[in-house]
Amino acid sequence: MTLNPASDAFIAALQAQLPEGTVRPADPRFLEEPRGRFFGSPDQHVALPHTTEQVSTIVKACNAARVGIVPFGGGTGLVGGQVMQDGPTPLILSLERMNRILGVYPLENVIEVQAGVILSEVQAASEEVDRLFPLSLASEGSARIGGNLASNAGGVNVLRYGNTRDLCLGIEAVLPTGDILQGMTRLRKDNTGYDLRGLMVGSEGTLGIITGAALKLSPRPSSVGTALMVVENPAAALRLLALARSHVGEAVSAFELLHRQGLEFVAETLPDIRQPFSAPSDWTVLIELGMVARADETLEEIFVHALEEGLVTDGVVAQSAQQRTDFWSLREHIPVANKRIGSVSSHDISLPLETLPDFIARAGQVIASLGDFRINCFGHLGDGNLHYNVFPAQGRDRSEYENMRDQVKFAVHDLVAEYSGSFSAEHGVGRLKTGDLMRYGDPAKVVAMKAIKQALDPLGIMNPGVVLPA
Amino acid sequence: MTLNPASDAFIAALQAQLPEGTVRPADPRFLEEPRGRFFGSPDQHVALPHTTEQVSTIVKACNAARVGIVPFGGGTGLVGGQVMQDGPTPLILSLERMNRILGVYPLENVIEVQAGVILSEVQAASEEVDRLFPLSLASEGSARIGGNLASNAGGVNVLRYGNTRDLCLGIEAVLPTGDILQGMTRLRKDNTGYDLRGLMVGSEGTLGIITGAALKLSPRPSSVGTALMVVENPAAALRLLALARSHVGEAVSAFELLHRQGLEFVAETLPDIRQPFSAPSDWTVLIELGMVARADETLEEIFVHALEEGLVTDGVVAQSAQQRTDFWSLREHIPVANKRIGSVSSHDISLPLETLPDFIARAGQVIASLGDFRINCFGHLGDGNLHYNVFPAQGRDRSEYENMRDQVKFAVHDLVAEYSGSFSAEHGVGRLKTGDLMRYGDPAKVVAMKAIKQALDPLGIMNPGVVLPA
Repeated sequence: MTLNPASDAFIAALQAQLPEGTVRPADPRFLEEPRGRFFGSPDQHVALPHTTEQVSTIVKACNAARVGIVPFGGGTGLVGGQVMQDGPTPLILSLERMNRILGVYPLENVIEVQAGVILSEVQAASEEVDRLFPLSLASEGSARIGGNLASNAGGVNVLRYGNTRDLCLGIEAVLPTGDILQGMTRLRKDNTGYDLRGLMVGSEGTLGIITGAALKLSPRPSSVGTALMVVENPAAALRLLALARSHVGEAVSAFELLHRQGLEFVAETLPDIRQPFSAPSDWTVLIELGMVARADETLEEIFVHALEEGLVTDGVVAQSAQQRTDFWSLREHIPVANKRIGSVSSHDISLPLETLPDFIARAGQVIASLGDFRINCFGHLGDGNLHYNVFPAQGRDRSEYENMRDQVKFAVHDLVAEYSGSFSAEHGVGRLKTGDLMRYGDPAKVVAMKAIKQALDPLGIMNPGVVLPA
Repeated sequence: MTLNPASDAFIAALQAQLPEGTVRPADPRFLEEPRGRFFGSPDQHVALPHTTEQVSTIVKACNAARVGIVPFGGGTGLVGGQVMQDGPTPLILSLERMNRILGVYPLENVIEVQAGVILSEVQAASEEVDRLFPLSLASEGSARIGGNLASNAGGVNVLRYGNTRDLCLGIEAVLPTGDILQGMTRLRKDNTGYDLRGLMVGSEGTLGIITGAALKLSPRPSSVGTALMVVENPAAALRLLALARSHVGEAVSAFELLHRQGLEFVAETLPDIRQPFSAPSDWTVLIELGMVARADETLEEIFVHALEEGLVTDGVVAQSAQQRTDFWSLREHIPVANKRIGSVSSHDISLPLETLPDFIARAGQVIASLGDFRINCFGHLGDGNLHYNVFPAQGRDRSEYENMRDQVKFAVHDLVAEYSGSFSAEHGVGRLKTGDLMRYGDPAKVVAMKAIKQALDPLGIMNPGVVLPA
């Protein structure tokens, strides 16, 4: 069952069904992605609907003509889910014009949004009513909530508040038939059939187009404390996490692991970013508490306690909002620095928490056995989610390692599989990791996924080649 | 596509594949359910496997012979999902022998269990390592976790910790083909394909048999405060909830609404249950805080504040563990009292929180217009989940209202639909509410659900007639 290209005749017919300017040649920004691995052919068109009904019209037309649809959110995805470079020319679908906040319900802790709203605008609208929308990630200034939902985005607050799926009460979506799923409910409890919300969230545009969502808000912690603490090794970091939790329960909002390598990359490529320690230690933890009161003092208490137990060797609790911002800026610039250095292979992995120290030790040995590399291992330690990125040795360039990329990747992912971990903790499968899913995925899961895809999208028009091979 | 009955020959052949005693005539306890609405025919057999592989063998045999399977957990479900009374004789499948705790990971806040473990045993095993498994409901002493997962059970702590689906990281399940879905992951983040975990949870045994799960634990709040507070009306209760949250954020663990009618039912049918107020007011709220410290004092502060704002008129904060137990005992005996009184029609509904006061007022008018009834409206107000139960007038019997049951039910559910609520907030659809799903469900959702059911269970052997009509 092959797809047809979006021909001139198809585009013209679709244009005739929609307001002028809705379907037009795609700007270059729709044809590239941040990793630079996938490029869309320049003859593609983009549809920019204003309403859910127009989305339905577009999907129905594609379904009737068997034309592929590539949904495009903010374009920030890291696994190539938003750009199709092979196969019959698809139609790109961007919801950037569907960017309205539909309702805010502070008493209910709910916000209703269209899918094209930028994540930071969802955060801002929530803050306006003294609520927190906890999803927070580096690209929040350009990522659109529809893309966050489609990819079940993670970020720095998962530890406390969960992934995007956990933050979503209901969705409106256009199914591959063009029918509209009217699921934008504000209900906290609704046990009336299969969880299509959860299924659509994280399906990366392969089962339908999410057009709107009702999202959970949380009380805004009135007292926030942030600290950097130096630990001897990842095992000590995990014990620090346990210590912090025994003090404050769920109030630990973020627990990020930084490696010396990352801080050195930042110092080298982004010298303006303030670094609190003159000589970075091997392992540093960024910890944040969000509480009703006394977060700073509590963090000091935890620090003293951890010092006494020998879990930390140094540390600094942010004494001002500026210093807190600095700590986070340091954390958030690590991926920027990584990009400037240029990785051989990057991995977004997760492991059962207890196995993390052992994994990090073994992975280091495995990579060393393959050649001369630098490793920047950092990320959302509290969730067991590491960005385990492998770089050229000092003074060498990534181009020299081109032929080793797959070897490195498989070495890391094989080890992850051995520890019952995941080869994609938060970025998704996209087009980049379909091979990994086939290699590491549970066979019964893959069979069931294919059956579901076939059932909901029998012609395979929705984001062809993403998650499952085309 | 009709199913075949589980014939003597089928049973004999299945017995030959399994250890002796695994398949045997069903005891009466497998043929009834708490509401007394559904009865299984006495010629049914039950399979009691010890292992996931045996479950797989059983499902494969049923699939090959096109015999229906009715999964049976603790038998506590309230919508008839566990008993099939019409159609070709099915095989009952109970996992009560698969009742082991497989692993406890305090550092990770995870517990791994087989599906046949009783809920209270999951709670106890978590408490042993000073952790909380927050799922808590009246039937926790006999409900099995597999059934809780299959029905996405709710209970009194959803407000803070979410439904069963939210508490589940991964599942192992036997699919309708007999293949084993190896999804029992302890990972907090795993974005490698469709959320089959979320799909299976809440599918009420219609897409497969959940055989095990990795469940999230939480820190155990070291300080718990519980109070009963009298409010003028449901609107004041919602304002009290907002006030409490503005004081303590997510620390509000439970927020239950009690109506005078329920307290009177308890006084009438269960005179030994201690009641704190000599003359019950129309509306009382049971509120619980779980904090790191000072929960009682905080609750006192909230109470004083609420008095000053005129939100509450009376109240009592539990001064001892015994008093806390008494408050909860009062709450938990309301359904027992309801059963003794005998309802005309019971409704497990949810509404957008802001609409609740209006809904309660209008529903009261609607019911009054139908005839002479007593209404006991109580439940998990913080989640927008009400148990809206309609009873005979004082001195009359439910049998006199037999012909009005549907009229009452539709009147309530029609009004719920008008307010964009749900006709099943936490009990599920089962066999009791398939008609409601067809009547009130979003048509696109029902079509998609049917497609998924057909894709995963093409012969329709899994719990026939549940959720979707057979």
